Amino acid sequence: MSETIGFIGLGNLGLPLASNLLNAGYALRVYNRTASKAEPLVAQGAQQVNRPVDAVTSGGIVVTILWGDASVESIVTSDDFLEQLGPGGIHLAMSTISPERAKKLAAMHAQHGSVYVEAPIFGGSEAAVAQQLWMPFAGPQIAKERVRPLLKAMGGQGIVDFGEEVGAATLVKLVGNFLIVSAGQSLREALSMAENNGVDPKAVLDMLTTAPTLFPTPIYQRHGKRIVEDTKAAPFRQNKIPLKDVDLFKTTAQQVESSTPIANLLSDLLRSDEARA
Amino acid sequence: MSETIGFIGLGNLGLPLASNLLNAGYALRVYNRTASKAEPLVAQGAQQVNRPVDAVTSGGIVVTILWGDASVESIVTSDDFLEQLGPGGIHLAMSTISPERAKKLAAMHAQHGSVYVEAPIFGGSEAAVAQQLWMPFAGPQIAKERVRPLLKAMGGQGIVDFGEEVGAATLVKLVGNFLIVSAGQSLREALSMAENNGVDPKAVLDMLTTAPTLFPTPIYQRHGKRIVEDTKAAPFRQNKIPLKDVDLFKTTAQQVESSTPIANLLSDLLRSDEARA
Repeated sequence: MSETIGFIGLGNLGLPLASNLLNAGYALRVYNRTASKAEPLVAQGAQQVNRPVDAVTSGGIVVTILWGDASVESIVTSDDFLEQLGPGGIHLAMSTISPERAKKLAAMHAQHGSVYVEAPIFGGSEAAVAQQLWMPFAGPQIAKERVRPLLKAMGGQGIVDFGEEVGAATLVKLVGNFLIVSAGQSLREALSMAENNGVDPKAVLDMLTTAPTLFPTPIYQRHGKRIVEDTKAAPFRQNKIPLKDVDLFKTTAQQVESSTPIANLLSDLLRSDEARA
Repeated sequence: MSETIGFIGLGNLGLPLASNLLNAGYALRVYNRTASKAEPLVAQGAQQVNRPVDAVTSGGIVVTILWGDASVESIVTSDDFLEQLGPGGIHLAMSTISPERAKKLAAMHAQHGSVYVEAPIFGGSEAAVAQQLWMPFAGPQIAKERVRPLLKAMGGQGIVDFGEEVGAATLVKLVGNFLIVSAGQSLREALSMAENNGVDPKAVLDMLTTAPTLFPTPIYQRHGKRIVEDTKAAPFRQNKIPLKDVDLFKTTAQQVESSTPIANLLSDLLRSDEARA
Protein backbone atom coordinates (compact mmCIF):
# COMPACT_ATOMS: atom_id res chain seq x y z
CA MET A 1 0.00 0.00 0.00
CA SER A 2 2.84 2.37 -0.72
CA GLU A 3 0.81 4.17 -3.41
CA THR A 4 0.38 7.88 -2.75
CA ILE A 5 -3.22 9.07 -2.99
CA GLY A 6 -4.32 12.65 -3.54
CA PHE A 7 -7.14 13.71 -1.24
CA ILE A 8 -9.04 16.95 -1.78
CA GLY A 9 -11.77 18.18 0.57
CA LEU A 10 -11.38 17.78 4.33
CA GLY A 11 -14.87 18.58 5.58
CA ASN A 12 -16.96 16.66 8.10
CA LEU A 13 -16.85 13.54 5.99
CA GLY A 14 -13.57 14.01 4.11
CA LEU A 15 -11.55 14.20 7.29
CA PRO A 16 -12.50 10.81 8.79
CA LEU A 17 -12.24 9.15 5.36
CA ALA A 18 -8.72 10.48 4.83
CA SER A 19 -7.85 9.41 8.36
CA ASN A 20 -9.12 5.90 7.62
CA LEU A 21 -6.88 5.76 4.54
CA LEU A 22 -3.83 6.80 6.56
CA ASN A 23 -4.68 4.16 9.17
CA ALA A 24 -4.87 1.58 6.40
CA GLY A 25 -1.32 2.41 5.35
CA TYR A 26 -1.87 4.68 2.35
CA ALA A 27 0.36 7.72 1.88
CA LEU A 28 -1.72 10.87 1.32
CA ARG A 29 -1.18 14.27 -0.21
CA VAL A 30 -4.02 16.38 1.14
CA TYR A 31 -5.50 19.69 0.05
CA ASN A 32 -8.23 21.80 1.61
CA ARG A 33 -9.23 25.38 0.86
CA THR A 34 -9.13 26.17 4.58
CA ALA A 35 -5.65 24.81 5.17
CA SER A 36 -5.90 24.46 8.95
CA LYS A 37 -8.40 21.59 8.55
CA ALA A 38 -5.50 19.39 7.44
CA GLU A 39 -3.68 19.60 10.76
CA PRO A 40 -4.91 16.31 12.32
CA LEU A 41 -4.03 14.48 9.09
CA VAL A 42 -0.57 16.02 8.94
CA ALA A 43 -0.13 14.82 12.53
CA GLN A 44 -1.06 11.36 11.20
CA GLY A 45 1.65 11.58 8.53
CA ALA A 46 -0.15 13.16 5.56
CA GLN A 47 1.69 15.61 3.34
CA GLN A 48 -0.20 18.90 2.95
CA VAL A 49 -0.10 20.72 -0.39
CA ASN A 50 -1.03 24.26 -1.39
CA ARG A 51 -2.88 23.68 -4.64
CA PRO A 52 -5.26 20.91 -5.75
CA VAL A 53 -2.95 20.01 -8.65
CA ASP A 54 -0.11 19.38 -6.20
CA ALA A 55 -2.11 16.52 -4.69
CA VAL A 56 -2.22 14.80 -8.08
CA THR A 57 0.23 12.07 -9.06
CA SER A 58 0.57 11.45 -12.77
CA GLY A 59 -1.31 8.21 -13.52
CA GLY A 60 -2.35 7.98 -9.86
CA ILE A 61 -5.58 8.29 -7.92
CA VAL A 62 -7.02 11.56 -6.63
CA VAL A 63 -10.10 11.66 -4.39
CA THR A 64 -12.48 14.63 -4.10
CA ILE A 65 -15.14 15.14 -1.42
CA LEU A 66 -16.54 18.63 -1.87
CA TRP A 67 -19.71 20.65 -1.49
CA GLY A 68 -21.28 20.28 -4.91
CA ASP A 69 -21.22 20.69 -8.68
CA ALA A 70 -19.38 23.98 -8.88
CA SER A 71 -16.68 23.13 -6.35
CA VAL A 72 -15.83 19.82 -8.02
CA GLU A 73 -15.64 21.40 -11.46
CA SER A 74 -13.52 24.26 -10.16
CA ILE A 75 -10.96 21.76 -8.82
CA VAL A 76 -10.90 19.77 -12.06
CA THR A 77 -10.39 22.93 -14.14
CA SER A 78 -7.84 24.50 -11.79
CA ASP A 79 -4.25 24.89 -13.02
CA ASP A 80 -3.22 21.82 -15.01
CA PHE A 81 -5.12 19.32 -12.85
CA LEU A 82 -6.27 17.15 -15.76
CA GLU A 83 -2.93 17.32 -17.57
CA GLN A 84 -1.15 16.26 -14.39
CA LEU A 85 -3.53 13.35 -13.74
CA GLY A 86 -3.14 12.20 -17.34
CA PRO A 87 -3.33 8.70 -18.89
CA GLY A 88 -3.95 5.96 -16.33
CA GLY A 89 -4.98 8.51 -13.73
CA ILE A 90 -8.25 8.15 -11.83
CA HIS A 91 -10.39 10.84 -10.29
CA LEU A 92 -12.46 9.18 -7.56
CA ALA A 93 -15.31 11.65 -7.12
CA MET A 94 -17.32 11.21 -3.91
CA SER A 95 -19.29 14.46 -3.66
CA THR A 96 -23.07 14.59 -4.13
CA ILE A 97 -23.49 16.42 -7.44
CA SER A 98 -25.83 16.20 -10.43
CA PRO A 99 -25.54 13.16 -12.71
CA GLU A 100 -25.35 15.60 -15.61
CA ARG A 101 -22.29 17.32 -14.17
CA ALA A 102 -20.72 13.94 -13.40
CA LYS A 103 -21.09 12.99 -17.07
CA LYS A 104 -19.59 16.28 -18.18
CA LEU A 105 -16.60 15.82 -15.86
CA ALA A 106 -16.15 12.23 -17.04
CA ALA A 107 -16.00 13.49 -20.63
CA MET A 108 -13.39 16.12 -19.68
CA HIS A 109 -11.23 13.42 -18.09
CA ALA A 110 -11.58 11.17 -21.12
CA GLN A 111 -10.10 13.94 -23.26
CA HIS A 112 -6.95 13.79 -21.13
CA GLY A 113 -6.71 10.00 -20.94
CA SER A 114 -7.73 9.90 -17.30
CA VAL A 115 -10.82 8.22 -15.85
CA TYR A 116 -13.62 9.58 -13.67
CA VAL A 117 -15.15 7.14 -11.19
CA GLU A 118 -18.04 8.20 -8.95
CA ALA A 119 -18.68 6.81 -5.47
CA PRO A 120 -20.93 9.13 -3.45
CA ILE A 121 -21.38 8.22 0.18
CA PHE A 122 -24.31 7.24 2.38
CA GLY A 123 -23.42 7.86 6.00
CA GLY A 124 -21.90 10.63 8.07
CA SER A 125 -18.71 11.07 10.05
CA GLU A 126 -19.83 8.60 12.75
CA ALA A 127 -20.53 5.90 10.17
CA ALA A 128 -17.11 6.63 8.61
CA VAL A 129 -15.38 6.02 11.94
CA ALA A 130 -17.48 2.87 12.44
CA GLN A 131 -16.65 1.69 8.88
CA GLN A 132 -20.35 1.51 8.04
CA LEU A 133 -20.55 3.62 4.91
CA TRP A 134 -22.55 2.56 1.87
CA MET A 135 -21.43 3.69 -1.56
CA PRO A 136 -23.05 3.22 -4.94
CA PHE A 137 -20.32 3.43 -7.56
CA ALA A 138 -20.04 3.67 -11.32
CA GLY A 139 -17.39 4.11 -13.96
CA PRO A 140 -15.12 2.06 -16.23
CA GLN A 141 -14.65 -1.46 -14.86
CA ILE A 142 -10.84 -1.50 -14.62
CA ALA A 143 -10.78 1.81 -12.77
CA LYS A 144 -13.46 0.60 -10.36
CA GLU A 145 -11.38 -2.48 -9.56
CA ARG A 146 -8.43 -0.27 -8.79
CA VAL A 147 -10.33 2.03 -6.43
CA ARG A 148 -12.41 -0.62 -4.64
CA PRO A 149 -9.72 -1.33 -1.99
CA LEU A 150 -9.59 2.41 -1.26
CA LEU A 151 -13.35 2.57 -0.74
CA LYS A 152 -13.12 -0.33 1.70
CA ALA A 153 -10.23 1.29 3.52
CA MET A 154 -12.23 4.53 3.81
CA GLY A 155 -14.96 2.68 5.69
CA GLY A 156 -17.12 1.26 2.92
CA GLN A 157 -19.19 -1.59 4.33
CA GLY A 158 -21.30 -1.86 1.19
CA ILE A 159 -19.91 -0.91 -2.20
CA VAL A 160 -22.57 -1.42 -4.84
CA ASP A 161 -21.71 -1.43 -8.53
CA PHE A 162 -24.11 0.50 -10.80
CA GLY A 163 -22.31 -0.19 -14.02
CA GLU A 164 -19.86 1.59 -16.25
CA GLU A 165 -21.90 4.65 -17.12
CA VAL A 166 -21.03 7.60 -14.91
CA GLY A 167 -24.10 9.36 -13.45
CA ALA A 168 -25.93 6.24 -12.27
CA ALA A 169 -24.31 6.11 -8.82
CA THR A 170 -24.79 9.84 -8.36
CA LEU A 171 -28.46 9.42 -9.21
CA VAL A 172 -28.79 6.65 -6.61
CA LYS A 173 -27.33 9.00 -4.01
CA LEU A 174 -29.91 11.68 -4.93
CA VAL A 175 -32.72 9.14 -4.71
CA GLY A 176 -31.52 8.04 -1.28
CA ASN A 177 -31.23 11.57 0.03
CA PHE A 178 -34.67 12.46 -1.30
CA LEU A 179 -36.14 9.47 0.57
CA ILE A 180 -34.29 10.45 3.74
CA VAL A 181 -35.59 14.02 3.57
CA SER A 182 -39.10 12.77 2.86
CA ALA A 183 -38.95 10.42 5.86
CA GLY A 184 -37.62 13.18 8.11
CA GLN A 185 -40.16 15.80 7.10
CA SER A 186 -43.00 13.29 7.27
CA LEU A 187 -41.93 12.25 10.77
CA ARG A 188 -41.91 15.85 11.82
CA GLU A 189 -45.43 16.45 10.50
CA ALA A 190 -46.66 13.23 12.14
CA LEU A 191 -45.03 13.67 15.54
CA SER A 192 -46.13 17.32 15.72
CA MET A 193 -49.67 16.18 15.02
CA ALA A 194 -49.43 13.65 17.87
CA GLU A 195 -47.99 16.19 20.29
CA ASN A 196 -50.57 18.84 19.39
CA ASN A 197 -53.26 16.25 20.12
CA GLY A 198 -51.82 15.53 23.55
CA VAL A 199 -50.21 12.19 22.66
CA ASP A 200 -46.56 11.80 23.71
CA PRO A 201 -44.51 11.91 20.48
CA LYS A 202 -41.70 9.90 22.07
CA ALA A 203 -44.06 7.02 22.85
CA VAL A 204 -45.38 7.13 19.27
CA LEU A 205 -41.87 7.15 17.83
CA ASP A 206 -40.77 4.31 20.09
CA MET A 207 -43.55 2.07 18.88
CA LEU A 208 -43.19 2.90 15.20
CA THR A 209 -39.40 2.42 15.22
CA THR A 210 -39.52 -0.76 17.31
CA ALA A 211 -42.10 -2.81 15.40
CA PRO A 212 -40.13 -4.92 12.86
CA THR A 213 -42.94 -4.46 10.35
CA LEU A 214 -42.88 -0.63 10.51
CA PHE A 215 -39.82 1.68 10.68
CA PRO A 216 -37.07 0.05 12.76
CA THR A 217 -34.23 1.85 10.96
CA PRO A 218 -31.58 4.37 12.01
CA ILE A 219 -33.03 6.98 9.61
CA TYR A 220 -36.38 7.05 11.41
CA GLN A 221 -34.87 6.49 14.84
CA ARG A 222 -32.25 9.21 14.57
CA HIS A 223 -34.36 11.89 12.89
CA GLY A 224 -37.28 10.97 15.14
CA LYS A 225 -35.19 11.40 18.28
CA ARG A 226 -34.14 14.85 17.13
CA ILE A 227 -37.74 15.82 16.31
CA VAL A 228 -39.06 14.52 19.63
CA GLU A 229 -36.57 16.76 21.42
CA ASP A 230 -38.16 19.74 19.70
CA THR A 231 -41.04 19.27 17.28
CA LYS A 232 -40.92 22.96 16.41
CA ALA A 233 -37.32 22.81 15.17
CA ALA A 234 -36.30 21.85 11.65
CA PRO A 235 -35.67 18.09 11.38
CA PHE A 236 -32.36 18.57 9.60
CA ARG A 237 -29.66 20.38 11.52
CA GLN A 238 -27.79 21.35 8.39
CA ASN A 239 -30.60 22.35 6.12
CA LYS A 240 -28.34 23.44 3.30
CA ILE A 241 -27.28 19.92 2.41
CA PRO A 242 -30.75 18.34 2.11
CA LEU A 243 -32.03 21.42 0.28
CA LYS A 244 -29.19 21.26 -2.25
CA ASP A 245 -29.72 17.52 -2.75
CA VAL A 246 -33.51 17.69 -3.10
CA ASP A 247 -33.03 20.46 -5.67
CA LEU A 248 -30.54 18.25 -7.56
CA PHE A 249 -33.12 15.43 -7.43
CA LYS A 250 -35.73 17.78 -8.90
CA THR A 251 -33.44 19.03 -11.66
CA THR A 252 -32.42 15.50 -12.59
CA ALA A 253 -36.06 14.45 -12.75
CA GLN A 254 -37.20 17.46 -14.71
CA GLN A 255 -34.64 16.83 -17.45
CA VAL A 256 -36.54 13.67 -18.32
CA GLU A 257 -39.97 15.10 -17.46
CA SER A 258 -40.37 12.83 -14.47
CA SER A 259 -42.87 14.49 -12.13
CA THR A 260 -41.75 15.43 -8.62
CA PRO A 261 -44.71 16.63 -6.55
CA ILE A 262 -43.19 15.43 -3.27
CA ALA A 263 -39.69 16.76 -4.01
CA ASN A 264 -41.22 20.12 -4.92
CA LEU A 265 -43.01 20.28 -1.57
CA LEU A 266 -39.94 19.12 0.38
CA SER A 267 -37.85 21.76 -1.32
CA ASP A 268 -40.38 24.44 -0.29
CA LEU A 269 -40.48 23.14 3.29
CA LEU A 270 -36.69 23.06 3.57
CA ARG A 271 -36.45 26.53 2.07
CA SER A 272 -38.88 27.94 4.62
CA ASP A 273 -36.96 26.21 7.45
CA GLU A 274 -33.81 27.80 6.02
CA ALA A 275 -35.42 31.24 5.93
CA ARG A 276 -36.49 30.95 9.57
CA ALA A 277 -33.10 29.65 10.77
CA MET B 1 -60.79 -20.14 27.45
CA SER B 2 -64.42 -21.13 27.44
CA GLU B 3 -65.53 -17.46 27.25
CA THR B 4 -67.65 -16.70 24.22
CA ILE B 5 -66.46 -13.69 22.25
CA GLY B 6 -68.58 -11.67 19.84
CA PHE B 7 -66.77 -10.91 16.58
CA ILE B 8 -68.17 -8.41 14.09
CA GLY B 9 -66.50 -7.71 10.73
CA LEU B 10 -65.05 -10.56 8.68
CA GLY B 11 -63.07 -8.70 6.04
CA ASN B 12 -59.50 -9.35 4.87
CA LEU B 13 -58.15 -8.79 8.35
CA GLY B 14 -61.14 -9.77 10.50
CA LEU B 15 -61.28 -13.25 9.05
CA PRO B 16 -57.74 -14.41 9.97
CA LEU B 17 -58.00 -12.74 13.39
CA ALA B 18 -61.24 -14.57 14.16
CA SER B 19 -59.66 -17.77 12.90
CA ASN B 20 -56.70 -17.25 15.25
CA LEU B 21 -59.10 -16.85 18.16
CA LEU B 22 -60.88 -20.08 17.31
CA ASN B 23 -57.51 -21.83 17.03
CA ALA B 24 -56.61 -20.52 20.47
CA GLY B 25 -59.72 -22.17 21.93
CA TYR B 26 -62.12 -19.23 22.17
CA ALA B 27 -65.78 -19.75 21.31
CA LEU B 28 -67.00 -17.13 18.80
CA ARG B 29 -70.32 -15.68 17.79
CA VAL B 30 -69.63 -14.04 14.45
CA TYR B 31 -71.50 -11.48 12.41
CA ASN B 32 -70.79 -10.02 8.98
CA ARG B 33 -73.02 -7.94 6.74
CA THR B 34 -72.23 -10.28 3.84
CA ALA B 35 -73.13 -13.46 5.66
CA SER B 36 -71.29 -15.87 3.32
CA LYS B 37 -67.94 -14.51 4.53
CA ALA B 38 -68.50 -16.38 7.79
CA GLU B 39 -68.47 -19.83 6.16
CA PRO B 40 -64.82 -20.76 6.88
CA LEU B 41 -65.26 -19.73 10.51
CA VAL B 42 -68.46 -21.72 10.89
CA ALA B 43 -66.52 -24.69 9.52
CA GLN B 44 -64.01 -24.00 12.30
CA GLY B 45 -66.77 -24.12 14.91
CA ALA B 46 -67.95 -20.49 15.14
CA GLN B 47 -71.63 -19.75 15.65
CA GLN B 48 -72.99 -17.35 13.03
CA VAL B 49 -75.61 -14.77 14.05
CA ASN B 50 -77.94 -12.58 11.99
CA ARG B 51 -77.66 -9.26 13.79
CA PRO B 52 -74.71 -7.52 15.46
CA VAL B 53 -76.53 -7.48 18.79
CA ASP B 54 -76.86 -11.27 18.68
CA ALA B 55 -73.06 -11.52 18.85
CA VAL B 56 -73.05 -9.64 22.16
CA THR B 57 -72.97 -11.42 25.53
CA SER B 58 -74.11 -9.36 28.49
CA GLY B 59 -70.98 -8.31 30.39
CA GLY B 60 -68.81 -10.03 27.78
CA ILE B 61 -66.38 -8.94 25.09
CA VAL B 62 -67.36 -7.97 21.56
CA VAL B 63 -64.76 -7.23 18.88
CA THR B 64 -65.34 -5.01 15.85
CA ILE B 65 -63.11 -4.74 12.77
CA LEU B 66 -64.92 -2.60 10.23
CA TRP B 67 -64.33 -0.11 7.45
CA GLY B 68 -64.44 3.18 9.33
CA ASP B 69 -66.18 5.72 11.54
CA ALA B 70 -69.71 5.34 10.18
CA SER B 71 -69.74 1.55 10.12
CA VAL B 72 -68.52 1.23 13.71
CA GLU B 73 -71.06 3.75 14.97
CA SER B 74 -73.86 2.09 13.02
CA ILE B 75 -73.10 -1.23 14.76
CA VAL B 76 -72.96 0.38 18.20
CA THR B 77 -76.27 2.14 17.66
CA SER B 78 -78.01 -0.83 16.04
CA ASP B 79 -80.86 -2.47 17.92
CA ASP B 80 -80.08 -2.66 21.64
CA PHE B 81 -76.33 -3.34 21.18
CA LEU B 82 -75.23 -1.11 24.07
CA GLU B 83 -78.01 -2.27 26.39
CA GLN B 84 -77.14 -5.89 25.72
CA LEU B 85 -73.39 -5.34 26.31
CA GLY B 86 -74.17 -3.53 29.58
CA PRO B 87 -72.16 -3.23 32.80
CA GLY B 88 -68.88 -5.13 32.72
CA GLY B 89 -69.10 -5.50 28.96
CA ILE B 90 -66.18 -4.51 26.75
CA HIS B 91 -66.24 -3.34 23.14
CA LEU B 92 -62.80 -4.07 21.70
CA ALA B 93 -62.69 -1.72 18.71
CA MET B 94 -59.97 -2.51 16.16
CA SER B 95 -61.01 -0.48 13.10
CA THR B 96 -59.05 2.54 11.90
CA ILE B 97 -61.34 5.46 12.69
CA SER B 98 -60.92 9.05 13.91
CA PRO B 99 -59.80 9.60 17.50
CA GLU B 100 -62.73 11.98 17.85
CA ARG B 101 -65.24 9.26 16.94
CA ALA B 102 -63.48 6.82 19.25
CA LYS B 103 -63.96 9.26 22.14
CA LYS B 104 -67.62 9.73 21.24
CA LEU B 105 -68.19 5.96 21.16
CA ALA B 106 -66.36 5.55 24.47
CA ALA B 107 -68.71 8.10 26.03
CA MET B 108 -71.75 6.26 24.65
CA HIS B 109 -70.51 3.02 26.21
CA ALA B 110 -69.87 4.73 29.54
CA GLN B 111 -73.51 5.76 29.65
CA HIS B 112 -74.48 2.08 29.54
CA GLY B 113 -71.86 0.87 32.01
CA SER B 114 -69.79 -0.85 29.33
CA VAL B 115 -66.23 -0.01 28.35
CA TYR B 116 -64.70 0.88 24.99
CA VAL B 117 -61.12 -0.27 24.39
CA GLU B 118 -59.32 0.58 21.15
CA ALA B 119 -56.64 -1.59 19.56
CA PRO B 120 -56.17 -0.75 15.88
CA ILE B 121 -53.89 -3.06 13.94
CA PHE B 122 -50.62 -2.65 12.06
CA GLY B 123 -50.22 -5.53 9.65
CA GLY B 124 -52.29 -7.29 7.03
CA SER B 125 -53.74 -10.75 6.64
CA GLU B 126 -50.31 -12.34 6.11
CA ALA B 127 -48.97 -10.81 9.31
CA ALA B 128 -52.09 -12.03 11.11
CA VAL B 129 -51.43 -15.58 10.00
CA ALA B 130 -47.75 -15.21 10.99
CA GLN B 131 -48.79 -13.74 14.40
CA GLN B 132 -46.76 -10.60 13.66
CA LEU B 133 -49.33 -7.89 14.23
CA TRP B 134 -48.54 -4.73 16.16
CA MET B 135 -51.30 -2.97 18.06
CA PRO B 136 -51.29 0.29 19.95
CA PHE B 137 -54.05 0.12 22.51
CA ALA B 138 -55.81 2.45 24.93
CA GLY B 139 -58.69 2.42 27.36
CA PRO B 140 -59.44 1.79 31.03
CA GLN B 141 -56.71 -0.30 32.64
CA ILE B 142 -58.84 -3.17 33.94
CA ALA B 143 -60.54 -3.62 30.58
CA LYS B 144 -57.17 -3.62 28.82
CA GLU B 145 -55.91 -6.37 31.09
CA ARG B 146 -58.97 -8.42 30.25
CA VAL B 147 -58.56 -8.08 26.46
CA ARG B 148 -54.78 -8.41 26.29
CA PRO B 149 -54.86 -12.25 26.05
CA LEU B 150 -57.31 -11.91 23.15
CA LEU B 151 -55.01 -9.54 21.29
CA LYS B 152 -52.15 -12.01 21.71
CA ALA B 153 -54.32 -14.87 20.54
CA MET B 154 -55.33 -12.84 17.46
CA GLY B 155 -51.67 -12.61 16.43
CA GLY B 156 -50.45 -9.58 18.37
CA GLN B 157 -46.66 -9.74 18.56
CA GLY B 158 -46.39 -6.24 19.98
CA ILE B 159 -49.19 -4.76 22.08
CA VAL B 160 -48.25 -1.24 23.13
CA ASP B 161 -50.14 0.56 25.87
CA PHE B 162 -50.95 4.22 25.16
CA GLY B 163 -52.75 4.92 28.40
CA GLU B 164 -56.31 5.08 29.59
CA GLU B 165 -57.59 7.84 27.35
CA VAL B 166 -59.36 6.50 24.29
CA GLY B 167 -58.23 8.15 21.03
CA ALA B 168 -54.49 7.91 21.64
CA ALA B 169 -54.05 4.45 20.09
CA THR B 170 -56.24 5.40 17.15
CA LEU B 171 -54.08 8.47 16.60
CA VAL B 172 -50.93 6.31 16.60
CA LYS B 173 -52.49 4.15 13.92
CA LEU B 174 -53.22 7.22 11.78
CA VAL B 175 -49.65 8.47 12.26
CA GLY B 176 -48.28 5.09 11.20
CA ASN B 177 -50.48 4.86 8.12
CA PHE B 178 -49.57 8.41 7.11
CA LEU B 179 -45.86 7.48 7.31
CA ILE B 180 -46.47 4.33 5.30
CA VAL B 181 -48.30 6.24 2.56
CA SER B 182 -45.58 8.90 2.53
CA ALA B 183 -42.88 6.24 2.19
CA GLY B 184 -44.78 4.49 -0.60
CA GLN B 185 -45.52 7.60 -2.63
CA SER B 186 -41.98 8.88 -2.17
CA LEU B 187 -40.54 5.57 -3.34
CA ARG B 188 -42.74 5.75 -6.39
CA GLU B 189 -41.57 9.26 -7.26
CA ALA B 190 -37.94 8.25 -6.66
CA LEU B 191 -37.93 4.96 -8.55
CA SER B 192 -39.81 6.50 -11.48
CA MET B 193 -37.15 9.20 -11.61
CA ALA B 194 -34.43 6.54 -11.71
CA GLU B 195 -36.18 4.55 -14.41
CA ASN B 196 -36.87 7.63 -16.54
CA ASN B 197 -33.15 8.43 -16.33
CA GLY B 198 -32.21 4.95 -17.54
CA VAL B 199 -31.13 3.57 -14.16
CA ASP B 200 -32.62 0.18 -13.20
CA PRO B 201 -35.13 0.90 -10.41
CA LYS B 202 -34.78 -2.64 -9.06
CA ALA B 203 -31.03 -2.19 -8.54
CA VAL B 204 -31.66 1.14 -6.79
CA LEU B 205 -34.32 -0.39 -4.53
CA ASP B 206 -32.11 -3.36 -3.72
CA MET B 207 -29.30 -1.14 -2.51
CA LEU B 208 -31.50 1.25 -0.52
CA THR B 209 -33.41 -1.56 1.20
CA THR B 210 -30.29 -3.63 1.91
CA ALA B 211 -28.01 -1.06 3.53
CA PRO B 212 -28.63 -1.29 7.31
CA THR B 213 -28.24 2.48 7.59
CA LEU B 214 -30.93 3.24 4.98
CA PHE B 215 -34.33 1.53 4.49
CA PRO B 216 -34.03 -2.20 5.27
CA THR B 217 -37.68 -2.57 6.31
CA PRO B 218 -40.65 -4.52 4.95
CA ILE B 219 -42.54 -1.27 4.26
CA TYR B 220 -39.92 -0.06 1.77
CA GLN B 221 -39.15 -3.55 0.48
CA ARG B 222 -42.74 -4.55 -0.15
CA HIS B 223 -44.00 -1.28 -1.63
CA GLY B 224 -40.77 -0.94 -3.59
CA LYS B 225 -41.14 -4.37 -5.11
CA ARG B 226 -44.66 -3.51 -6.26
CA ILE B 227 -43.51 -0.20 -7.73
CA VAL B 228 -40.55 -1.77 -9.51
CA GLU B 229 -42.94 -4.18 -11.23
CA ASP B 230 -44.77 -1.18 -12.67
CA THR B 231 -43.64 2.35 -11.87
CA LYS B 232 -46.66 3.74 -13.70
CA ALA B 233 -49.15 1.98 -11.43
CA ALA B 234 -50.39 3.35 -8.12
CA PRO B 235 -48.21 2.15 -5.24
CA PHE B 236 -51.18 1.09 -3.14
CA ARG B 237 -53.36 -1.63 -4.60
CA GLN B 238 -56.34 -0.67 -2.49
CA ASN B 239 -56.22 3.08 -2.71
CA LYS B 240 -59.40 3.58 -0.74
CA ILE B 241 -57.85 2.54 2.56
CA PRO B 242 -54.78 4.83 2.48
CA LEU B 243 -56.90 7.70 1.17
CA LYS B 244 -59.42 7.30 3.98
CA ASP B 245 -56.64 7.10 6.58
CA VAL B 246 -54.66 10.07 5.26
CA ASP B 247 -57.86 12.09 5.29
CA LEU B 248 -58.49 11.03 8.91
CA PHE B 249 -54.91 12.08 9.72
CA LYS B 250 -55.57 15.49 8.15
CA THR B 251 -58.86 15.99 9.98
CA THR B 252 -57.32 15.01 13.31
CA ALA B 253 -54.44 17.44 12.73
CA GLN B 254 -56.65 20.28 11.58
CA GLN B 255 -58.76 20.11 14.73
CA VAL B 256 -55.71 21.26 16.69
CA GLU B 257 -54.36 23.48 13.91
CA SER B 258 -51.38 21.23 13.28
CA SER B 259 -50.19 21.87 9.73
CA THR B 260 -50.22 19.00 7.24
CA PRO B 261 -48.54 20.03 3.99
CA ILE B 262 -47.35 16.50 3.23
CA ALA B 263 -50.65 14.82 4.15
CA ASN B 264 -52.47 17.34 1.93
CA LEU B 265 -50.26 16.44 -1.02
CA LEU B 266 -50.53 12.69 -0.37
CA SER B 267 -54.28 12.97 -0.22
CA ASP B 268 -54.30 14.75 -3.60
CA LEU B 269 -51.96 12.14 -5.11
CA LEU B 270 -54.06 9.24 -3.82
CA ARG B 271 -57.22 10.92 -5.05
CA SER B 272 -55.83 11.30 -8.53
CA ASP B 273 -54.68 7.65 -8.52
CA GLU B 274 -58.20 6.75 -7.47
CA ALA B 275 -59.73 8.82 -10.27
CA ARG B 276 -57.53 7.10 -12.86
CA ALA B 277 -58.19 3.60 -11.49
